[in-house]
Amino acid sequence: MSRGINISETAELLRNCEDAYILIHMNPDGDCIGSGYSLQAVLKQLGIRSRVICPDPIPERFHFLLPEEPEEEFPAKYVIAVDCADEKRFGILEQDYAGKVQLCIDHHISNNGYAKHLLVEPDASSACEVLYKVYRFMQVKFTKQIAECIYTGMATDTGCFKFSCTGADTHIFTAEIMREFPEIRYDLINRKMFDVKTPGRIRAEMVMLSQMEYHLENQCTLIWVTKTICQENQINDKDLEGLTSLPLQPSGVEVGVTLREQDNGFYRVSMRSTDKVNVSEICQKFGGGGHIRAAGCQIPGTAEEVRKKVLDAVREAL
Amino acid sequence: MSRGINISETAELLRNCEDAYILIHMNPDGDCIGSGYSLQAVLKQLGIRSRVICPDPIPERFHFLLPEEPEEEFPAKYVIAVDCADEKRFGILEQDYAGKVQLCIDHHISNNGYAKHLLVEPDASSACEVLYKVYRFMQVKFTKQIAECIYTGMATDTGCFKFSCTGADTHIFTAEIMREFPEIRYDLINRKMFDVKTPGRIRAEMVMLSQMEYHLENQCTLIWVTKTICQENQINDKDLEGLTSLPLQPSGVEVGVTLREQDNGFYRVSMRSTDKVNVSEICQKFGGGGHIRAAGCQIPGTAEEVRKKVLDAVREAL
Repeated sequence: MSRGINISETAELLRNCEDAYILIHMNPDGDCIGSGYSLQAVLKQLGIRSRVICPDPIPERFHFLLPEEPEEEFPAKYVIAVDCADEKRFGILEQDYAGKVQLCIDHHISNNGYAKHLLVEPDASSACEVLYKVYRFMQVKFTKQIAECIYTGMATDTGCFKFSCTGADTHIFTAEIMREFPEIRYDLINRKMFDVKTPGRIRAEMVMLSQMEYHLENQCTLIWVTKTICQENQINDKDLEGLTSLPLQPSGVEVGVTLREQDNGFYRVSMRSTDKVNVSEICQKFGGGGHIRAAGCQIPGTAEEVRKKVLDAVREAL
Repeated sequence: MSRGINISETAELLRNCEDAYILIHMNPDGDCIGSGYSLQAVLKQLGIRSRVICPDPIPERFHFLLPEEPEEEFPAKYVIAVDCADEKRFGILEQDYAGKVQLCIDHHISNNGYAKHLLVEPDASSACEVLYKVYRFMQVKFTKQIAECIYTGMATDTGCFKFSCTGADTHIFTAEIMREFPEIRYDLINRKMFDVKTPGRIRAEMVMLSQMEYHLENQCTLIWVTKTICQENQINDKDLEGLTSLPLQPSGVEVGVTLREQDNGFYRVSMRSTDKVNVSEICQKFGGGGHIRAAGCQIPGTAEEVRKKVLDAVREAL
């Protein structure tokens, strides 16, 4: 099941593009970074130069996925977006690239079709899984860097093969990569992605767990990431990545919500569900989106107002 | 690489056994439970009755792996052990079964060869992975229960495909199971195994993280699970399962040690390593064993004495 063009047509567009910009989303994660830098390496094999463009800095723990040589500067003749369901995901670069994306490769069911050509596979675990199929179709020669990019993207978007988005294909492609590159220390990649915590992160988890709110007969948990909490506990932005799975820890929770105070009077809402609830639908009501069990949106108002809006919407969905 | 008999010979022994007892280890985990109950189901298909024998109760979260019908009682004519590297792992049943095991199927490199016939595959992620190969060789008809047993065993022993014991085969076998049983909610099994925490567990993690000791230039962390800590924080035995990965959370840690106070004047030591150190070798010095990156032993003495012994051994290994 895919929307838009197929893999063969995507391969054709990639083979024929020139001076490409590869856009990845704000707050970049393993999947968009792995997608962007693997695609850059693949295009390079085809003799096509490209730049990976991200509105935010790439977090340090993903630096092992980047090419060793410095990036060349040149103007874009072709704009590709990977793992971006919406032009809003370009963040501060939205005004520069809105309406200009010629090819988008994605796996978000909520992709709004903003690009001229679109390859969306909502059943794929990750954009990296879609790209893996494209690369195999193109008979790309895999390198260690490409393998690490694809593995990291699939592993991070599936919570290390834990979430419902993990498919048999995800495991097959992972096995193929592991057979071709047995020398890669996948366990150390996983440790870096999932297990290693900064002292700030350890403090953040202790605070969030101790202050977690239980609502709707304990089926919905809320954690608040306010500026005050972060200042008092010396918690910075990096410490908070992926904290959104924390509210799902207590048994019996159906929807876990992380509310993060923004500078503009909004709260950024990250919603996760365990089984029955489609949180993408809930977040779409507030202008957001995502996947069935992991989605997000922004809601304006005070903490009380936002709590009420979120709980009303979750109550309705339960 | 396997030790002892091969898969075909193992299949032959299983086909010809009668009234089997399947021994699994003390403090049973997903792998030995999945191994034991899948083997029972497979033997049943062959018209052979068997009982799964465990020195400790099966924790509630594994009950979905058990057969629906109550177990028949009968004396053993054939004794099989799965996932047990040593007869000591039979716990309180050691005196009953030591020297009586006819067939042992295992994946621990430290297996001491106590059984008459031994199939050990140290490269396999789990005993369930070894059994999967045996069942496929035997052309067993997989049922949902067998599939769930094997998936749970492989997933739990690999930390959901995270640890270095995860091989390409682990992913391939998982994909085969997922293709054959797409209706199984693997994500909910994973949630139950890895994410859901009791209130006591959440308290345990908060206490252990706040009291964690850093030694040997922060390359070695220690957490203490004493009776006093457990009483004061209402933490029970169930809350502590799998806590042993906690000391590996801070970045830069090479060896993480969990020391759990026992009733007999001993501390139970669980040792995990991230990269270079073979903790199985360290634990063997104290009469224990396990895997390269996950092993255990028991050490007598006061907290100070045990800390010194452990740190001396880790220092030597680093």
